[in-house]
Amino acid sequence: MVELKEFERIDYLFRENRKIIQSKRFFSFSLDAVLLADFVNLPQKRQFKYLDFCSGNGIIPIILSAKTTNPLEGIELQSELVEMARRSIELNQLENQITIHEGDLNEFPHGNADYDFITCNPPYFLLENSKEIHRLTSHHLARHEVSLTMDQWLFKASKLLKDKGRLYIVHRPERLDDLMEGLLQHGFSVKRIKFAYPKVGALANIVLIEAIYRGGRRGVRIEPPLIVHQENGEYTPEMKAIYFGE
Amino acid sequence: MVELKEFERIDYLFRENRKIIQSKRFFSFSLDAVLLADFVNLPQKRQFKYLDFCSGNGIIPIILSAKTTNPLEGIELQSELVEMARRSIELNQLENQITIHEGDLNEFPHGNADYDFITCNPPYFLLENSKEIHRLTSHHLARHEVSLTMDQWLFKASKLLKDKGRLYIVHRPERLDDLMEGLLQHGFSVKRIKFAYPKVGALANIVLIEAIYRGGRRGVRIEPPLIVHQENGEYTPEMKAIYFGE
Repeated sequence: MVELKEFERIDYLFRENRKIIQSKRFFSFSLDAVLLADFVNLPQKRQFKYLDFCSGNGIIPIILSAKTTNPLEGIELQSELVEMARRSIELNQLENQITIHEGDLNEFPHGNADYDFITCNPPYFLLENSKEIHRLTSHHLARHEVSLTMDQWLFKASKLLKDKGRLYIVHRPERLDDLMEGLLQHGFSVKRIKFAYPKVGALANIVLIEAIYRGGRRGVRIEPPLIVHQENGEYTPEMKAIYFGE
Repeated sequence: MVELKEFERIDYLFRENRKIIQSKRFFSFSLDAVLLADFVNLPQKRQFKYLDFCSGNGIIPIILSAKTTNPLEGIELQSELVEMARRSIELNQLENQITIHEGDLNEFPHGNADYDFITCNPPYFLLENSKEIHRLTSHHLARHEVSLTMDQWLFKASKLLKDKGRLYIVHRPERLDDLMEGLLQHGFSVKRIKFAYPKVGALANIVLIEAIYRGGRRGVRIEPPLIVHQENGEYTPEMKAIYFGE
């Protein structure tokens, strides 16, 4: 049996038939991570190397384990979250498939450039814009560019990926200019973009990007918009399919 | 009376109560121009200077003349189109409001940097990607970067606009990476983006961008998606409102 700590609960990922430990105190996975995992295309036949940046409680590799039998890695800075992710992995008996590394991504070794796929659900907000900079809680580390800037994770992705390796990002549309500029500066081209909108008529609040390292510019595909909620507040059929399967 | 030439016809812009001369031979305005004109925000009270790049048959200033009484300018390279635009202006008795300059945008004088607004429906396609480069017809000049490259019109916009002046662009989403990169390189920040999709479930085929010259990065707004056609092929209510008024 896996032990639950104070403020923790187990949630179910219905479509994937997986369980995941969440904590009110530290971190709950968000829609963002679920949409990013759904946006990722992994090959069915060949072997590949995969790493999840800023892995949190492991939600993205845990979802992806339902799409592939290939080994999956994640890296997370905060030891409490690493420990929580490892207990979720145990809960799903995925110890042989998923490995979570504990540590600072900036110090992750990158000599080999042998990764095929990286996912990244990074801190979204510039520190300078934060009014709550004095409160460096776990929540803040996950949301603000305190210990990891956009330039740092883009640099690391460019060093870890093979040529033509894919980087999948979820971020805030407000940062699209910084994201596009940073990607191009670090040798990526942008292949696919998808925007999610909380409801009809609202501004997009989530952007998903697939970028290719040293892939050459082949033209950006803007995928159909995802509307998350219906007028009555319920999830749209498309969103239900992502959470619960079709 | 305004004279019509061979292959020409007069179309009506219902919402604006304007007439426009179209030609099968040279150029017909497209959905792109109509959407760009709809996307533009012009001030109601203060005076401003406005210029339309690549003005074609004058469709954008002719639509905008229904939104403002301010003088409007356009520039177009092809003399047949300039002449057609001028006849449309006469047809609508807008000679006192709209001026179309004939000439190469690259040679348009830019000493004063005193424009508040520029619209641009430029050639979309890179020449290197064109299989029909030997056919330098009027149609090709309007669609391919033959006589005007993205870098050239971005440079010219940056020179003509005041600080915090607005550049409105319609383009192909496939070029979003080049557009964002070029805008940032020429001192613009991106304020608003809107994507249009031919129908539900399709990739976007039109992107509208509002950029600010020397405005500082304030965050990009991704506006609600515009779906152009219903399943049955009719225009959506939103698209009908743009064409025919509400």
